[in-house]
Amino acid sequence: MGNEPAHTVTRYDQELDRLRGIVARMGGLVERQTAQAIAAVVDQDEEAAIEPPELDTEVDALEREAEMLAIRILALRAPMAVDLRMIVAVLKMSGDLERIGDYASSIARRAMKVEPLDGAFSFSPLRAMARLVQENLHKAIEAMVENDSTRAMEVWNADTAVDELYTAMFRELVTYMMEDPQRVYYAVTGNMLPAVRPRGGAARKDTHKES
Amino acid sequence: MGNEPAHTVTRYDQELDRLRGIVARMGGLVERQTAQAIAAVVDQDEEAAIEPPELDTEVDALEREAEMLAIRILALRAPMAVDLRMIVAVLKMSGDLERIGDYASSIARRAMKVEPLDGAFSFSPLRAMARLVQENLHKAIEAMVENDSTRAMEVWNADTAVDELYTAMFRELVTYMMEDPQRVYYAVTGNMLPAVRPRGGAARKDTHKES
Repeated sequence: MGNEPAHTVTRYDQELDRLRGIVARMGGLVERQTAQAIAAVVDQDEEAAIEPPELDTEVDALEREAEMLAIRILALRAPMAVDLRMIVAVLKMSGDLERIGDYASSIARRAMKVEPLDGAFSFSPLRAMARLVQENLHKAIEAMVENDSTRAMEVWNADTAVDELYTAMFRELVTYMMEDPQRVYYAVTGNMLPAVRPRGGAARKDTHKES
Repeated sequence: MGNEPAHTVTRYDQELDRLRGIVARMGGLVERQTAQAIAAVVDQDEEAAIEPPELDTEVDALEREAEMLAIRILALRAPMAVDLRMIVAVLKMSGDLERIGDYASSIARRAMKVEPLDGAFSFSPLRAMARLVQENLHKAIEAMVENDSTRAMEVWNADTAVDELYTAMFRELVTYMMEDPQRVYYAVTGNMLPAVRPRGGAARKDTHKES
């Protein structure tokens, strides 16, 4: 865009900033959905379960907004190299974020339908996993907004720790259910939580590719 | 691109066809991964469980190839309107397909680790659900390749039927486990299968948006 007047370049930069801003806003909402869904399951907090499905409409609208703006920038600005790869990453990340939000809503809805687990289930690997997934989600969005490849690599490497916590949680859950069949319904429903894990991973991967 | 010589336009069309072709090939592989994963769980077919993880490398490579070609077309051809929306849809769909393949591999790996379920579990809602998810996946890819919005709408509408089968399967599974705690390990592992459902839905949504 070197031959165009300065004000056009500035407007173009503003558009790219706006696109990053939309995905950052999506990320913030999805982080909130995830936090509330986790609170609904782990702390049996009924209030917390209400928000994630409510935020879905806003997240969906932001995904459409990101897609429309990306298409507009691609059509009118013909971005090159780094900018083009950023736009492609943003398109993929917005889809990933939307789906993480979907999972969070689904977890929150399930959490409201079931009885709390009794004290025999510690929740500690699940809590640790939830904390790590949230931290990774937050860092992945920061890495995208600040175009920070070091941060993206940190998130990428943190995947192994999440996998290990998942295995620990899964084993505890199976043992818990085998001890008393009455626990099955809640435990199976609660087990949907780890579904956020691979989705978080996908968001991280796109950020990493971009950086 | 109306002012360019005819041979350039043809090459551009060929590039778009190649892009669609890559995603169609991805779709074919992911369909195969899904079919084999389902056979591994439902028919307890150990042979079938081997292929899905093996195909992952190829699916990942195709996703990267699609992304690189899309970026190339965007940078060199500055596609407009319909073509641009197709490219954006292809970028999102390739990510969805890659993740459906990931889930299929994960299901296949789990299926190999556990003992078969006894005769008390009918598998019929799971079979029906698997058939429908596969049919939808196939139709969604066809809709993308042929740019057929009627077909995309059919897939979109079929979502309710998949949800109903999921609920039926989930209830049967919980009852099955409550009858005998020894069944918990297999049943919880088998329950990962429905994870393909929302992913299939996402692929459908992108096709629909595109059409």
